Amino acid sequence: MQRLNFDVDVVDVDWGAGVDLSVLREKLLADPYHQIKAVCVVHNETATGVTNDLSGIRNVLDRCRHPALFLVDGVSSIGALDFRMDEWGVDVALTGSQKALSLPTGLGIICAGPKALEASKTAKSLRVFFDWNDYLKFYKMGTYWPYTPSSQLLYGLRASMDMIFEEGLDNVIARHQRCGHATRLAVEAWGLKNCTQKPEWFSDTVTAVLVPSHMDSSQVVKHAWKKYNLSLGLGLNKVAGKVFRIGHLGHLNELQLLGALAGVEMVLKDLGYPIQLGSGVGAASAYLMQSTPLIKSRL
Amino acid sequence: MQRLNFDVDVVDVDWGAGVDLSVLREKLLADPYHQIKAVCVVHNETATGVTNDLSGIRNVLDRCRHPALFLVDGVSSIGALDFRMDEWGVDVALTGSQKALSLPTGLGIICAGPKALEASKTAKSLRVFFDWNDYLKFYKMGTYWPYTPSSQLLYGLRASMDMIFEEGLDNVIARHQRCGHATRLAVEAWGLKNCTQKPEWFSDTVTAVLVPSHMDSSQVVKHAWKKYNLSLGLGLNKVAGKVFRIGHLGHLNELQLLGALAGVEMVLKDLGYPIQLGSGVGAASAYLMQSTPLIKSRL
Amino acid sequence: MQRLNFDVDVVDVDWGAGVDLSVLREKLLADPYHQIKAVCVVHNETATGVTNDLSGIRNVLDRCRHPALFLVDGVSSIGALDFRMDEWGVDVALTGSQKALSLPTGLGIICAGPKALEASKTAKSLRVFFDWNDYLKFYKMGTYWPYTPSSQLLYGLRASMDMIFEEGLDNVIARHQRCGHATRLAVEAWGLKNCTQKPEWFSDTVTAVLVPSHMDSSQVVKHAWKKYNLSLGLGLNKVAGKVFRIGHLGHLNELQLLGALAGVEMVLKDLGYPIQLGSGVGAASAYLMQSTPLIKSRL
Amino acid sequence: MQRLNFDVDVVDVDWGAGVDLSVLREKLLADPYHQIKAVCVVHNETATGVTNDLSGIRNVLDRCRHPALFLVDGVSSIGALDFRMDEWGVDVALTGSQKALSLPTGLGIICAGPKALEASKTAKSLRVFFDWNDYLKFYKMGTYWPYTPSSQLLYGLRASMDMIFEEGLDNVIARHQRCGHATRLAVEAWGLKNCTQKPEWFSDTVTAVLVPSHMDSSQVVKHAWKKYNLSLGLGLNKVAGKVFRIGHLGHLNELQLLGALAGVEMVLKDLGYPIQLGSGVGAASAYLMQSTPLIKSRL
Repeated sequence: MQRLNFDVDVVDVDWGAGVDLSVLREKLLADPYHQIKAVCVVHNETATGVTNDLSGIRNVLDRCRHPALFLVDGVSSIGALDFRMDEWGVDVALTGSQKALSLPTGLGIICAGPKALEASKTAKSLRVFFDWNDYLKFYKMGTYWPYTPSSQLLYGLRASMDMIFEEGLDNVIARHQRCGHATRLAVEAWGLKNCTQKPEWFSDTVTAVLVPSHMDSSQVVKHAWKKYNLSLGLGLNKVAGKVFRIGHLGHLNELQLLGALAGVEMVLKDLGYPIQLGSGVGAASAYLMQSTPLIKSRL
Repeated sequence: MQRLNFDVDVVDVDWGAGVDLSVLREKLLADPYHQIKAVCVVHNETATGVTNDLSGIRNVLDRCRHPALFLVDGVSSIGALDFRMDEWGVDVALTGSQKALSLPTGLGIICAGPKALEASKTAKSLRVFFDWNDYLKFYKMGTYWPYTPSSQLLYGLRASMDMIFEEGLDNVIARHQRCGHATRLAVEAWGLKNCTQKPEWFSDTVTAVLVPSHMDSSQVVKHAWKKYNLSLGLGLNKVAGKVFRIGHLGHLNELQLLGALAGVEMVLKDLGYPIQLGSGVGAASAYLMQSTPLIKSRL
Repeated sequence: MQRLNFDVDVVDVDWGAGVDLSVLREKLLADPYHQIKAVCVVHNETATGVTNDLSGIRNVLDRCRHPALFLVDGVSSIGALDFRMDEWGVDVALTGSQKALSLPTGLGIICAGPKALEASKTAKSLRVFFDWNDYLKFYKMGTYWPYTPSSQLLYGLRASMDMIFEEGLDNVIARHQRCGHATRLAVEAWGLKNCTQKPEWFSDTVTAVLVPSHMDSSQVVKHAWKKYNLSLGLGLNKVAGKVFRIGHLGHLNELQLLGALAGVEMVLKDLGYPIQLGSGVGAASAYLMQSTPLIKSRL
Repeated sequence: MQRLNFDVDVVDVDWGAGVDLSVLREKLLADPYHQIKAVCVVHNETATGVTNDLSGIRNVLDRCRHPALFLVDGVSSIGALDFRMDEWGVDVALTGSQKALSLPTGLGIICAGPKALEASKTAKSLRVFFDWNDYLKFYKMGTYWPYTPSSQLLYGLRASMDMIFEEGLDNVIARHQRCGHATRLAVEAWGLKNCTQKPEWFSDTVTAVLVPSHMDSSQVVKHAWKKYNLSLGLGLNKVAGKVFRIGHLGHLNELQLLGALAGVEMVLKDLGYPIQLGSGVGAASAYLMQSTPLIKSRL
């Protein structure tokens, strides 16, 4: 297969761990001639429920005075987690319509800063449909696209933005924090472990739950779907069979989450895990009760 | 205001009680000349969560050899509770699109048997838009209506029927029985009373919950809406302030119900009622876990 | 059948004629003790394409100093034709969602002025679901209804209003005038007659076209549907078989109308009527070309 | 920019001409060692309204006994024009949801035959999201995708297929032939030329119309949109300013087409082109009248 004409230095971490800033610092310091063109990071790792510290990465780049571009995959974070393009000096961020924006799959949304746009002018990577220049050329003429756009999803994006702004982006982020924390309290009440290794990496959009070693997490997912119409996420790749994932992002409120948690309890008990029904829901409720604000606008 | 040209003998019962069959028998026996033209009954009383015993009423009519028409309001029952037009000799049954059929409001659906159609020919009550004869005349020509029909809701009705038949009407009824029973177990676990006075009248589509005398049930409903976006039913008329209602009919599954019950728990605790969070959800879950069937068709 | 407890004096006119103001004047003058409680009129008669002169009726009422209520059926007019509740002293006006508002069937919309509201307090006609007082009582509490409303259609009404206001009500009315006039020019070009007897009654929302005596207008309607998927209106009652109707109201633009007119031409020719294909479309186009304004907001 | 690791020999033709089979034969005969791996062709060229002769290309390949893959871009043809994957020995065909399938933009649909699948195993071109093997691997497990699919569009595809099969694919193709021919008759009646150079290449899904040399076709497109809300296609690239395009594919019937043609007539006359209004519509109607079949299933 055709090779990319640039090298990619993938820095592996344990599944459940986040970016190790010291490794990043080391790599950047070992690059005095700035061969490293870009640092790419996933803000929120969907497979393991790990949220990386983008602000910390920015700090490392700054302290090392390294000019590498900072490219962020924000698919399962932007619109749900705190994300600050300008403050954190992110050069390119992207997301999709189907996560925090609560839309059908189909839009890839990209935001590129001036440094990235400048770099794209001399970049030599293969580009066709996604060539930024084609888009920029058409945007100058008004609401035009170089290729047939998905008008429906663009209208949907408008509606999605309206909903987020009506709730308030800060409130949206706070709601995700509440739901994330409540989920972790339920997991704790069940006596199970979070796949995420340290609290600093806990994700407020997805929680990967480790099942006891004698259980197969795929059975949890399958049983949840077949008996309760509950769609949990499978463990992927290295954590296949070991974790199941509870998603809590997008247009989701506290009671929907509690319904899902009640479902997980029944699934676990069905499969022989000793659980007190209502224990996780109760723990999550106790937290949600004190942290959920009144919505003043509702009649 | 203009008088109806017939008398209506309303048989009042306590709010929370159902039809008293002995009163019915007495009235029918006291009518040897069959002045009573119709016995009208609400199958499921939405305000109090009372399901009447239609089969029992039919038996009384039969034993009294009384030819009165048997007219049933099945708005919050048909498509959710066991209802047998032919077996129970119901002459006219009606429902609406917005309850068990899970559609928007807008369709009134009526089913009239031969005895009712015959009676309508000589009936003298005022009729305009809803005159059956106009409809019957047009039906003969094909899929026609005497007035502009709501095509959208008719398509919706087709889809709703498809969903009910795909699940199986028996399974739909069993699901409502499960959800009704689970709700009552939660209410019991909270230490609260059902407004319905006897188990034989318990409704599987709506539960009216009595609050302690020092509480105002309207506050429960208002707080549930403002804080948790949870829509409970107000106590109406004689039970205003005394009951709130949990609806559990239509396109609703076990986990959605558990989410709602978790919400009620938080609301009650917020308002000072001493409740152990998770207690009602746990009690409901224990029952649902053992009674919910696997859906074999799901992948 | 039960009688209404008031008399209705229906003033018949030829099908194709509008309200005869002199008859109205005569009736009002012959009523010195004001036994006539209300004058009821259809603004736009859908079956014959006749628009009545509401302003003229108001003038007659005023000149006769008669206090009768002025009740208007505006089903196929309001939102498409010029209608002035206040200026014309209309006491009650009603319309439906399915005509000029371009929505699905389902909403009856009623507007009652102070005189009508006052009269309703002492009126003795039978009222149940549509009792104004029930609605007024609930409106005081906010956006509430005494019965389950059709939320979907209420959202639709909001969208429909937004569309009308975005175009501008005056522009909407002008568009209907254009389409009405263009349709009449096509009918003339085909050598056919309008069922409406005088130009002052021409309707800008529907045109009833008289077919030659040897033709059956039902065949026109049936053939249009079966061959061209074109939905024309049947002749009703006294004009059954004699007229077919071309509707031109609601969310319809000039080109959609021209497509329909082109369809009518082919239908007529298919059925043996000697027509030059393109003649009606050409006549309508010539007028539309000079009367259609540029839409400045389109990119 | 990174180079593709294979050579592309683009065979240019005049804009308005189709594939020259003699050039193809020549190239294939000049390749005794089968360096040419694939012959790629656009079935229907949207910019100029040219339909290429796929059957003829297959014949040339066969007669030259050349084993090159036959790859077809069927974006504006498949589902509207006659296309025969098996009979014409097409190895890969692709289309999009937004053309003949009448769906929103978003699905790329690809069909690969055994020869193409075999070739893909050893192909060295760069592949990521669109790697066939990833899809094939997941298809084996059931209705699964390697990446989040657009469920909405997949349901839409199901509905679109149902509509096409209900009408009958042959009838759909015949409808496009009718609309294409009718459009060309209108263009002829207006005294204008088709951009397509020979009748054998006429497209039944889009017609590119040449404007007189003193006119700017962009003005035609702009005026059509601003005055009549009519969306014509711009002339692209080499024919910019010289042609405007009338699309006639997908869920479109005869009367919708005639409405559009009536619009074009008014636009041309508005811009000073001497046209008899109704002439093109009349010419198109005369043909459609005799060629449109009765739809027997409509009531």
